[in-house]
Amino acid sequence: MAKKNIFYAQSGGVTAVINASACGVIETARNHRADIGKVYVGRNGILGALHQELYDTSKESAKAIAGLRYTPGGAFGSCRYKLKGLEEHRAQYQRLIDVFDAYNIGYFFYNGGGDSQDTTHKISQMAKHLNYPLTCIGIPKTVDNDLAVTDNCPGFGSVAKYVAVSIREAGLDIASMAETSTKVFIMEVMGRHAGWIAAAAGLAKEEEADPPHIILFPEVPFDEASFLKKVATSVKDYGYCTIVVSEGVRNKDGQFLSEQGLRDAFGHAQLGGVAPMIAQLVKTKLGYKYHWAVADYLQRAARHIASKVDVEQSYALGEAAVLAALEGKTDIMLTLDRKPGKHYRWSIGDVALKKVANIEKTMPKRYISKDGFGITAACRDYLSPLIEGEDYPPYKNGLPDYTRLKKVLAPKKLDTDFA
Amino acid sequence: MAKKNIFYAQSGGVTAVINASACGVIETARNHRADIGKVYVGRNGILGALHQELYDTSKESAKAIAGLRYTPGGAFGSCRYKLKGLEEHRAQYQRLIDVFDAYNIGYFFYNGGGDSQDTTHKISQMAKHLNYPLTCIGIPKTVDNDLAVTDNCPGFGSVAKYVAVSIREAGLDIASMAETSTKVFIMEVMGRHAGWIAAAAGLAKEEEADPPHIILFPEVPFDEASFLKKVATSVKDYGYCTIVVSEGVRNKDGQFLSEQGLRDAFGHAQLGGVAPMIAQLVKTKLGYKYHWAVADYLQRAARHIASKVDVEQSYALGEAAVLAALEGKTDIMLTLDRKPGKHYRWSIGDVALKKVANIEKTMPKRYISKDGFGITAACRDYLSPLIEGEDYPPYKNGLPDYTRLKKVLAPKKLDTDFA
Repeated sequence: MAKKNIFYAQSGGVTAVINASACGVIETARNHRADIGKVYVGRNGILGALHQELYDTSKESAKAIAGLRYTPGGAFGSCRYKLKGLEEHRAQYQRLIDVFDAYNIGYFFYNGGGDSQDTTHKISQMAKHLNYPLTCIGIPKTVDNDLAVTDNCPGFGSVAKYVAVSIREAGLDIASMAETSTKVFIMEVMGRHAGWIAAAAGLAKEEEADPPHIILFPEVPFDEASFLKKVATSVKDYGYCTIVVSEGVRNKDGQFLSEQGLRDAFGHAQLGGVAPMIAQLVKTKLGYKYHWAVADYLQRAARHIASKVDVEQSYALGEAAVLAALEGKTDIMLTLDRKPGKHYRWSIGDVALKKVANIEKTMPKRYISKDGFGITAACRDYLSPLIEGEDYPPYKNGLPDYTRLKKVLAPKKLDTDFA
Repeated sequence: MAKKNIFYAQSGGVTAVINASACGVIETARNHRADIGKVYVGRNGILGALHQELYDTSKESAKAIAGLRYTPGGAFGSCRYKLKGLEEHRAQYQRLIDVFDAYNIGYFFYNGGGDSQDTTHKISQMAKHLNYPLTCIGIPKTVDNDLAVTDNCPGFGSVAKYVAVSIREAGLDIASMAETSTKVFIMEVMGRHAGWIAAAAGLAKEEEADPPHIILFPEVPFDEASFLKKVATSVKDYGYCTIVVSEGVRNKDGQFLSEQGLRDAFGHAQLGGVAPMIAQLVKTKLGYKYHWAVADYLQRAARHIASKVDVEQSYALGEAAVLAALEGKTDIMLTLDRKPGKHYRWSIGDVALKKVANIEKTMPKRYISKDGFGITAACRDYLSPLIEGEDYPPYKNGLPDYTRLKKVLAPKKLDTDFA
């Protein structure tokens, strides 16, 4: 059997560690030259296959590839392109097969979240349908930690660490000045549908008086009265109040608070996110001086403070994809499995793609404290190991020395373009 | 001569490294027990003296004090309280002297920015006027880097490093997704009057195509047309545009853009900072999808990514204050002096307090590029050494293990309270 090549691509929102998975794929493939040909990577995810834009990673030095382990973002470009059903877009699927065939692709690894695993699944079905031999393996990734079956998602641990570190640090700042100045600090974090990232901020709290004093989850309908009461109590008891708010927090009618704020009574667009809204509410109703921060992409790109466990898992999943492919596995997404026992230990498992595609895992109720503003001990036990350890990138001139790839596109093999 | 005690206090906005100066003061005083008594620290800055709330640092373990070196915020509380002229507030000055006398204070060290050095100066004058023997030494501190005479300010180097790291990381994120999603990213940073922090983000740019593509300085009046042209050019040439905007950016009439945005035409309060305003402008005029972040206190509290040079200088200044006092120096602020030569070397000097009080140092014109949107090579040469080196705090359970002090207040010695 002639050696087949790998097509790997990054999909959806990028993370601080998705390139560590790429690194795992490429380095492991290089260690199995007898069985595997080249690793091609799609430019901007699956679009790279459709448009016949495949980076040839054999043109990159071992050092440049090793640098992917500690470089944030998606080094090859990502996309949010969702493939439609086989019936609707037969031409699109045929195009993928034609390109894969032209580049002798035998392995398809797609690195992404729930939507992306749906794509992986559809491509797997399509390949079978068209009798094209293709090993399809999903490599999980999402800062939102909302993928089903897997115990956690690569990318999440590093965001979790960033938000917990940040609220601990900002909390010390506010505490210093609270008596004569700012009393309330609000930090907005990601998580449109699931509160995992907001919950992780709760890890900063070791004692009752510690930040964060309030967490607002998408899973808990926002109740203005009980929120304001909690703010006032925190200021009274501790002298200040720190709040972590998920971008996805909603009112009782299920409406996003941030969307509520998009227009005022006269229809004028509001500019801010949910943090400035909450700040304004606190100021209007309680009169406290406030500050607010919106971490936005800083949080998911913060490789400088990545979780070591997260980096190791991300790399291991890339490695495992190659090994699973060589074992003949297909139509699976790899998972991170937590072993039983007091001390955190993990291993890599797998699950049929159809069981994870398009499913979102929100926070279980037992992870949210009774008053709805904090996390439980069970939640801490779950989250704590995921931020364990530091994995600092190398520095040059005071800044992280992130890798720069040559990114050489393979010559086009088909005469036709994809419309 | 009986041993005199030190009164040290932190003033104004806190930083990631102001506690390193406190650590330098306390540890050095402990190493000179023959000459110096206790180190008292004011609770919430100079207010602690007025209210007779003095923390007795002799109650803290060596380990807890050593931990100040790597703990952000103001461990003893800070304030923005400004003393008025001697004539206006004679009672206030008399109170300070009475408290200093009661606690046998012979040394007054005030750790703060321009306003705080004005306070140090006034207290020095007042002590002379009232014939109370008091050594007065200002220890510089301000993230804004806007103090006169000193080559740079402790606290600035760490913010500088944070913003340069953050824009490099977020830039990699945006670059990954730009072709199919977000094309413009805006990060708002501190600096109400001086653009030093915004300028520091420019250190992330090694090549012309690198982020940040645009910096908006308080020193350069905002010109909408040339700004939008630059955004469009960046998107055309590099596929995306990253913008660092100083909170203090103003229009041609000298009005803060953020204040312009505070109310709409109907007088309704706007909630956001300047980043969402710029984002809205880009969206309206150019149609690009955007994201924005406001780092706020996260930037000045980010001890986890502090500059090693900054930490060393901050500690050394605390140490130097004690040594200068023992040498009989008074009525000075300590300064950081840059030695001539290609490689960065620094030493500690001093300057008469009256020469630095209430003076703001803005960016020189030769540090801003001709088009007003970037920094020059001279600016890089100035800034680059200040972010050099990493000085990571210790971690426990995946989070920085910041010191917790006992903070024991000394028993009150005067029967009277300060009104």
